[in-house]
Amino acid sequence: MTTQQLVKEIHKKKSFLCIGLDVDLNKIPQHLLKKEDPIFEFNKAIIDATHHLCVAYKPNTAFYEAYGLKGWKALEKTIDYLNNNYPDIFTIADAKRGDIGNTSSMYAKAFFEDLGFDSVTVAPYMGKDSVEPFLAFKNKHTILLALTSNEGAYDFQTKSIEGLELYKTVLATSKSWNNSENLMYVVGATKAEYLVEIRQIIPHNFLLVPGVGAQGGSLEDVCKYGITKNIGLLINSSRSIIYASNKENFSSEASLKALQLQTQMELILNQL
Amino acid sequence: MTTQQLVKEIHKKKSFLCIGLDVDLNKIPQHLLKKEDPIFEFNKAIIDATHHLCVAYKPNTAFYEAYGLKGWKALEKTIDYLNNNYPDIFTIADAKRGDIGNTSSMYAKAFFEDLGFDSVTVAPYMGKDSVEPFLAFKNKHTILLALTSNEGAYDFQTKSIEGLELYKTVLATSKSWNNSENLMYVVGATKAEYLVEIRQIIPHNFLLVPGVGAQGGSLEDVCKYGITKNIGLLINSSRSIIYASNKENFSSEASLKALQLQTQMELILNQL
Repeated sequence: MTTQQLVKEIHKKKSFLCIGLDVDLNKIPQHLLKKEDPIFEFNKAIIDATHHLCVAYKPNTAFYEAYGLKGWKALEKTIDYLNNNYPDIFTIADAKRGDIGNTSSMYAKAFFEDLGFDSVTVAPYMGKDSVEPFLAFKNKHTILLALTSNEGAYDFQTKSIEGLELYKTVLATSKSWNNSENLMYVVGATKAEYLVEIRQIIPHNFLLVPGVGAQGGSLEDVCKYGITKNIGLLINSSRSIIYASNKENFSSEASLKALQLQTQMELILNQL
Repeated sequence: MTTQQLVKEIHKKKSFLCIGLDVDLNKIPQHLLKKEDPIFEFNKAIIDATHHLCVAYKPNTAFYEAYGLKGWKALEKTIDYLNNNYPDIFTIADAKRGDIGNTSSMYAKAFFEDLGFDSVTVAPYMGKDSVEPFLAFKNKHTILLALTSNEGAYDFQTKSIEGLELYKTVLATSKSWNNSENLMYVVGATKAEYLVEIRQIIPHNFLLVPGVGAQGGSLEDVCKYGITKNIGLLINSSRSIIYASNKENFSSEASLKALQLQTQMELILNQL
């Protein structure tokens, strides 16, 4: 999917919501556990109930790997279901991969070609040659970790390198990499006030913003400081939507939570 | 496996060799492609031919993910084969994972409990709360990326944070984390001269050292600067061993390459 197609969908749906599909069998409605593939059945119900309110879905691969082969099969079925039934949805493999060049190429092939995701999250620690193999794929997007939403972000990311914090060094340096137009960045909603300076370095790139909802970030603050002419934001919410209820009506409750966020986003978009 | 057990194996086998099981179907002997599970058959043959010469095996998960479900099944079979037949071998999932706390816990559970690896490689970018969930597992080891063997290591890792390079900041900071006695570190052999200062910060921890062989690192230099009283080194070689030949005799050729490295290691151990 091209960035232009994503922007078009945002305007069409009046939403820049991304829903995180982080399936934990201890948290999903217990009646689903009787099904042959509870993980996929849960995702399918959530997707069918929310697809008109969001523009992206983001399964975090950890939740699937934790269930071994069964989990990977459910991940494959989920991305196939999205690509077959809702091809206008932007898909994100939240995998936080990154390795030396030839190995990163294997990951890029796995997520972009074999699984068919539109994008994958990548860790920047190993530098340019660990990220460029992902950037080489046309109309695919590499979402680089910049400033994450967790406490540990202050251990290294906000430390200053020759006057510039590490996460800003990552932003500035990555701009010079081959095919850097395919870069998006992860910036946590819990650090919305950092967005002013982030937008000075990368005025146009899309940001994937986790941390709204369960982690306490503010949608208004993120938009105030981070929104661009092309919107440039994907706001992710996982637990507060998909686990809104663990009863039989879980998908309609999830839909209501998504509608609340979409309504706030529509108001923000109308004010631009 | 405890660190003491690993040290005992090193002395018993006169080897601190780790063999990387990075299986690429384009590079393995073509007669194996007729088998039901060529990846596992290749690994099994390599393991059976080299287990007496090395103390560790390290599959890089990228190579398995690239083959989807088939790949994950082969990874499961490989770690099961190792744990059942060679339980004294130290096993490393080279996965370079790392995520926010509850998500890192899922990865830790997947690699340590479900798959049964002794250790997993982890990226430090997201800080303390992304790594501690791995450290919480008793007699399991977290191998943190410090200074990697690739060109991109110079993009961020060697940049100075308040007078201390980022990789040294990672080493120094991680020492204060909970259960830090379960930490090992990745330090590339292509940067052996950095080991003097690394050993000043972490005098005792084991280092996993990639980059000897195909990437050009020197075994002598790594040992000169990095060896400790408990040896403290696992030298990884992947391609130069497992792809020594792509003919029917590939496993005996791999064994010869492993023997060359083990012989050099025995000489070094005898000189201590």
